[in-house]
Amino acid sequence: MSSEISVSLADVQAALKAIREHVLLSPCKHSPKLSKRAGCDLYVKMENQQRTGAFKDRGAMYAVVSLDDKARKAGVIAASAGNHAQGLAFAAQLNGIHATIVMPETAPLAKINGTAEYGAEVVLHGAGYDDAFGRAVELQKEKGYTFVHAFDDPHVIAGQGTIGLELLEQQPDLDVVVVPIGGGGLAAGMLVAMKALNPKIRFVGVQAANIASTKASVAAGKITTVRGSSIADGISVATPGRHTYPIIAKYIDEIVTVDEDEVADGILALLENENTVTEGSGAVSVAAVLHGKIAGIAGKKVCCVLSGGNIDTTFLGKVLNKGLAKEGRLSKFIVTVPDRPASIVDLATIAAANQASILDIHQKRTFNLADVRETEIELTLETRGPQQIEALVKAIAAKGYEVRSFEFD
Amino acid sequence: MSSEISVSLADVQAALKAIREHVLLSPCKHSPKLSKRAGCDLYVKMENQQRTGAFKDRGAMYAVVSLDDKARKAGVIAASAGNHAQGLAFAAQLNGIHATIVMPETAPLAKINGTAEYGAEVVLHGAGYDDAFGRAVELQKEKGYTFVHAFDDPHVIAGQGTIGLELLEQQPDLDVVVVPIGGGGLAAGMLVAMKALNPKIRFVGVQAANIASTKASVAAGKITTVRGSSIADGISVATPGRHTYPIIAKYIDEIVTVDEDEVADGILALLENENTVTEGSGAVSVAAVLHGKIAGIAGKKVCCVLSGGNIDTTFLGKVLNKGLAKEGRLSKFIVTVPDRPASIVDLATIAAANQASILDIHQKRTFNLADVRETEIELTLETRGPQQIEALVKAIAAKGYEVRSFEFD
Repeated sequence: MSSEISVSLADVQAALKAIREHVLLSPCKHSPKLSKRAGCDLYVKMENQQRTGAFKDRGAMYAVVSLDDKARKAGVIAASAGNHAQGLAFAAQLNGIHATIVMPETAPLAKINGTAEYGAEVVLHGAGYDDAFGRAVELQKEKGYTFVHAFDDPHVIAGQGTIGLELLEQQPDLDVVVVPIGGGGLAAGMLVAMKALNPKIRFVGVQAANIASTKASVAAGKITTVRGSSIADGISVATPGRHTYPIIAKYIDEIVTVDEDEVADGILALLENENTVTEGSGAVSVAAVLHGKIAGIAGKKVCCVLSGGNIDTTFLGKVLNKGLAKEGRLSKFIVTVPDRPASIVDLATIAAANQASILDIHQKRTFNLADVRETEIELTLETRGPQQIEALVKAIAAKGYEVRSFEFD
Repeated sequence: MSSEISVSLADVQAALKAIREHVLLSPCKHSPKLSKRAGCDLYVKMENQQRTGAFKDRGAMYAVVSLDDKARKAGVIAASAGNHAQGLAFAAQLNGIHATIVMPETAPLAKINGTAEYGAEVVLHGAGYDDAFGRAVELQKEKGYTFVHAFDDPHVIAGQGTIGLELLEQQPDLDVVVVPIGGGGLAAGMLVAMKALNPKIRFVGVQAANIASTKASVAAGKITTVRGSSIADGISVATPGRHTYPIIAKYIDEIVTVDEDEVADGILALLENENTVTEGSGAVSVAAVLHGKIAGIAGKKVCCVLSGGNIDTTFLGKVLNKGLAKEGRLSKFIVTVPDRPASIVDLATIAAANQASILDIHQKRTFNLADVRETEIELTLETRGPQQIEALVKAIAAKGYEVRSFEFD
């Protein structure tokens, strides 16, 4: 078994020495509000504050600084539409090395621009990751580039593991550490370092329930592929790595999963309580803690790694709206009223008297399920919470109108 | 003149010694992306990561720890619907002191709950700040509480000034520091410390153009009231303080202003480039730098203080949408089509072929400004940028339809 382990504590220590000046010593911050909600003493290790917005800088940086002269001259290549693309581009730029990143043609413009801004040559190819990967392998052979894998590479794993060394310095008396698992580079690197230096710290991995390939692999005792998709796209990896899997299987204490709603709630909880932006994969650790997925942590000192923050703004907007609706701060009413202008006056007056802003109002006259003298008004309001919604429903009903209030999807 | 200066470097140094263990040494982080956009070497001092989400913890903490035994037993009071409420509640709780916070009845539920969560007694009174303030003064007399002013108090000013001492340690070779000014507690405290220790650092204050009362006061040479409102509500203060004004007037190099759109853009720039959430007042420093309000900073080492991050989620959602629309990632089209079902099939097909998601589609048949055989379709799409919008317009026009595309407000 142990012959399969390709990364050692010494490797991670060497990585820290090599990259320390080029990466951010990310804050490990106590969260009073999330601690209260979770019933434990909760810290967040903010890799979403890393220079390109995710921990990927570390592994990419160590892979790049470890190249020999010939490889440095030839340059590096990767296939990625995610954080590894920006991490490798940044690491290469800082070291004056040429980087080529192959992305699918469907990659979001923000990711393409972000990668190009770090000086990388971006090649758009194919409809998905597999096509892009194929093109990257071709280009590697053609041009003599070094391929830097996003997770299944001993240097990359050692680089990610430096988070574990920092954490042991920042919080030496930690009880539990919670980290996201996709391909497993982050978990494997941190496990190698932390289990060697302090095996008593309980190490919990978190995967998206939709695509929990490492959990399935550990359960089966061998690398297993699980296909699926999740809003935690950064950890949506179908097959664990040949280097990462044996390390995780040997050292990890447990792997838990979170569903899509829990991921969204994790993003919102960090945004509202910690003023910090995480992407789906960056929020799964906190989601698992807040949603009771990890037993026996009451009163313990727990650190969640926030692995990244590069979330699409459109998607973040949707998470916000969902959160607002859940808190009763965005609400929809359908009111059946007599078909005369005074009805809409009544509703607008009630909204104003209750200080609820009207976001949208539609009177639907064409179809009418009940009486021909009646019509339906659909009202979307900015509200202040469930109590205000209840007050609005009462006020509308008191005018003799039939009213239903709805939660948003 | 100098007799009017009520806070000294020694006071700020004493404050730092007294509160150091109770407040976060906030990160001072280099921003590669914002540096590139601004053309200077830009750092952000992240007081939005402070324990209650804003720098107010510092001044409140120093005011509380400076109380004598009798005053500690009696407790503290403040009138605030903002960050000072939470800062004082938190400081009092940590020191086992009773805190009463008077808020207007219209205060957002999130702020009321946030303050109560820190153990304060929240009293809701009146329709606005003035009513709440009046009630706080009454309660102070009645109960013997110590009133802790949000900015016009020497202890509070000295506490806020500790940011300046930290900054000088974190970035000793800074050229320019940029800070928001509302009541002036933050600027006054930092000025006292930084101008004493390193007078060469250029100190720039930023106010909302709508309510630039300190700028007007400095111009007039005396305390001047300016009424107005801004989305930067944390710095919407009509009259500078008796303690803060003389310090700012004596030491500050310049005060610049930003308009409402610039504030919103600052929030969005920090969200998208630094993965961090700021409220309006927390983003004005970056807004001023990004929008060219500060001359002569090209190539200089500039630090912007992000004073707070407690933004209302509803408002943050609006800022996001505005940003998306500006980047062409949310777009509206009005298309005039023949009044037959095939038209809507064409539009949906074009959207699908261009991978633009339909968020909203309305066919408006009732009114028709042109031909009776024509109808209007309003289409709201999630798009990928201006180029895609152009491609969509071309594709729709190629089908023979008249199409207009719109920016959102």
